[in-house]
Amino acid sequence: MIKVAILGYGTVGSGVYKVLTENADIIEKRVGEALSVKYVLDLRDFPGDPVESVLVHDFELIEKDPEVSIVVETMGGLKVAYDFVKRCLLAGKSVSTSNKELVAAKGAELLTIAKEKNVNFMFEASVGGGIPIIRPLLNCVTPDRIEEVSGILNGTTNYILTAMAEEGADYDALIKRAQELGYAERNPEADVEGYDSCRKIAILTSLVCGRQVDYEDIYTEGITKITPEDLGYAKQIGGALRLLGISKIHDGRVHSIVAPFIVGKNHPLYAVNDVMNAVFVKGNMVGDLMFYGSGAGSLPTASAVVSDVIEEAKNIGKNIPVTWEAEKLPLADKGEFSCRFLVRTKSAKEKIEAAFGTVEYLDTDTAAEIAFLTGELTESDFEEKAGKIELIHRIRVSI
Amino acid sequence: MIKVAILGYGTVGSGVYKVLTENADIIEKRVGEALSVKYVLDLRDFPGDPVESVLVHDFELIEKDPEVSIVVETMGGLKVAYDFVKRCLLAGKSVSTSNKELVAAKGAELLTIAKEKNVNFMFEASVGGGIPIIRPLLNCVTPDRIEEVSGILNGTTNYILTAMAEEGADYDALIKRAQELGYAERNPEADVEGYDSCRKIAILTSLVCGRQVDYEDIYTEGITKITPEDLGYAKQIGGALRLLGISKIHDGRVHSIVAPFIVGKNHPLYAVNDVMNAVFVKGNMVGDLMFYGSGAGSLPTASAVVSDVIEEAKNIGKNIPVTWEAEKLPLADKGEFSCRFLVRTKSAKEKIEAAFGTVEYLDTDTAAEIAFLTGELTESDFEEKAGKIELIHRIRVSI
Repeated sequence: MIKVAILGYGTVGSGVYKVLTENADIIEKRVGEALSVKYVLDLRDFPGDPVESVLVHDFELIEKDPEVSIVVETMGGLKVAYDFVKRCLLAGKSVSTSNKELVAAKGAELLTIAKEKNVNFMFEASVGGGIPIIRPLLNCVTPDRIEEVSGILNGTTNYILTAMAEEGADYDALIKRAQELGYAERNPEADVEGYDSCRKIAILTSLVCGRQVDYEDIYTEGITKITPEDLGYAKQIGGALRLLGISKIHDGRVHSIVAPFIVGKNHPLYAVNDVMNAVFVKGNMVGDLMFYGSGAGSLPTASAVVSDVIEEAKNIGKNIPVTWEAEKLPLADKGEFSCRFLVRTKSAKEKIEAAFGTVEYLDTDTAAEIAFLTGELTESDFEEKAGKIELIHRIRVSI
Repeated sequence: MIKVAILGYGTVGSGVYKVLTENADIIEKRVGEALSVKYVLDLRDFPGDPVESVLVHDFELIEKDPEVSIVVETMGGLKVAYDFVKRCLLAGKSVSTSNKELVAAKGAELLTIAKEKNVNFMFEASVGGGIPIIRPLLNCVTPDRIEEVSGILNGTTNYILTAMAEEGADYDALIKRAQELGYAERNPEADVEGYDSCRKIAILTSLVCGRQVDYEDIYTEGITKITPEDLGYAKQIGGALRLLGISKIHDGRVHSIVAPFIVGKNHPLYAVNDVMNAVFVKGNMVGDLMFYGSGAGSLPTASAVVSDVIEEAKNIGKNIPVTWEAEKLPLADKGEFSCRFLVRTKSAKEKIEAAFGTVEYLDTDTAAEIAFLTGELTESDFEEKAGKIELIHRIRVSI
């Protein structure tokens, strides 16, 4: 019998408890031994909840119990989670976490400690919720030189963008509805400003490159300035607007960005709607791959956490090496990132063509603006040209 | 230095040689040791080809060379491949294969031999070409009770169905073009009659259930009878026609089928076009997942083969257990499978409603037929009702 402790009985933590108990038979079969939850740590009490009998308030009880060999961290936040996870690893326990802040900031260090203590630190659920992506990157796409990893990494914003496109409603109305439906938090900043996607693409890029990518280095733009008009233009050119985290790797240089992009019909991310997430991977041999599923939610995320727990249970006393060096990987300048741009401007065609040369004009509903598509430009090239016209808005295009 | 031998220098085998040589630096990093190809076995000669220096014609050379620890089988076919793979495993070598016939027929036995000899038998490339699906099923979706595994498992037929829908061309014209483009073989029967998809869904189902599923037991229907009219109706109800392999698992009973299905817009398989493949997995905790990529092609398939080789190289002297018992799993009767049906008939509405009750009528271009959608029915229920009308054609609908 392998004993597990869960730190935090919130949305994900309670899901982990449910998966471990309701699917106990399947999990025992996969591990070859039964797993049981010995402790659940939370500051709150849950009278009448099945968790009551194993609920504790004192972390040290878990840290000092040699019977506990696997700890699940689902508290979120950085400071306390970091302290607890580190102490668990140092105490010789494997840890599985869904905490993207923790992994993005401290992944390299925690993996090193896990290696030294001959245990495992796993974080499948930190990116893409229930979607298997971390382990496939580490165990499946291994023969390939990865040229791109990108994705729709946040369900809240994808829900809003899908609804804007389908209903023509505006951002303010939809963020309110998303909050009512529980898809967005009361303070939705981390989602809608792209910070959540940024941490996730930083984790994926660190794994793909084997070195620390600091999320603070990644240019990040959210969806709060997107208007129904933007979505109309996206539709006109046969695309869908998606908040993407992108890392492209050319000649050893890594180009990362988080921003709304218009994605063409033939791209697999085009059809990823509502709260679903997907990660796109391009390898030099395997070509295009996509991993699709629920990017959030209690049970999908818990399933990913427990898949780590199962791997850890199958590998007690054996560290599975993961390359993620702490030395920071310098990213290419944002100015070097290149794509096409959809531009909305108050300037006349003469001025547009003087700045951009030949462009592809779109239909507009109003005489107050002209919209056009540029060819492929670097960000800095675009900025320089856009400075010569009166810009209303620009959206990146990946078609 | 770990020595590898490749059996068969055809489309996939030559891809494997290319991946192992061109991405040797990445592979060495992943394994922690260099891999080198010591032998390539083929009956043919390849004068001037880089493979010439390692080309051999005698299998025993490989079988008896203790230096070779990993063998790749990419010959295809059953009889000789089975003999060679078995002898390699018995000689203490791990084997990776892309051969779906071999895996579907002999997977359980070869896994048992691998276990006894403390080596590994892997077959990531046997389903879905380059798509990571076998290892994610074994290592990622582990906490879940799998309720469905299904997919677009054949690129040739998906290419034809996509082109039929986009161009309105008929089957005969498109199979010819697919042959010219190299997407279909000169004898396309295995693809277009669904036999290829059937072997692949049998492999996936065996793995999900942990017991042998015989592909001969799975009802299989190909795409040769699909007409442009059928695709018109699919479009009318907002769906796309796809050749699916499906296994649904309810209450321990397994319902498997290979047939063309109309898939609704909201299903992730809807947007999988052209030669791309995708596998859909539904778990009781994780919900819907999809794995998408190139289902065939030299390099994508080779990438999957080499991902096995890397796992085998990292686990020399250690068998990774896979549950696939040889005892045959009895499938539910085909008559119990249930779905909706799109029906084209020469009978009048009176007769239709006498047989099926209330149905949903579709628009038709001709007075010569009536088309309608049934509610969810079992296959046997449908057969009985359809016997009462003059049937032109019926297509299963999963919307």
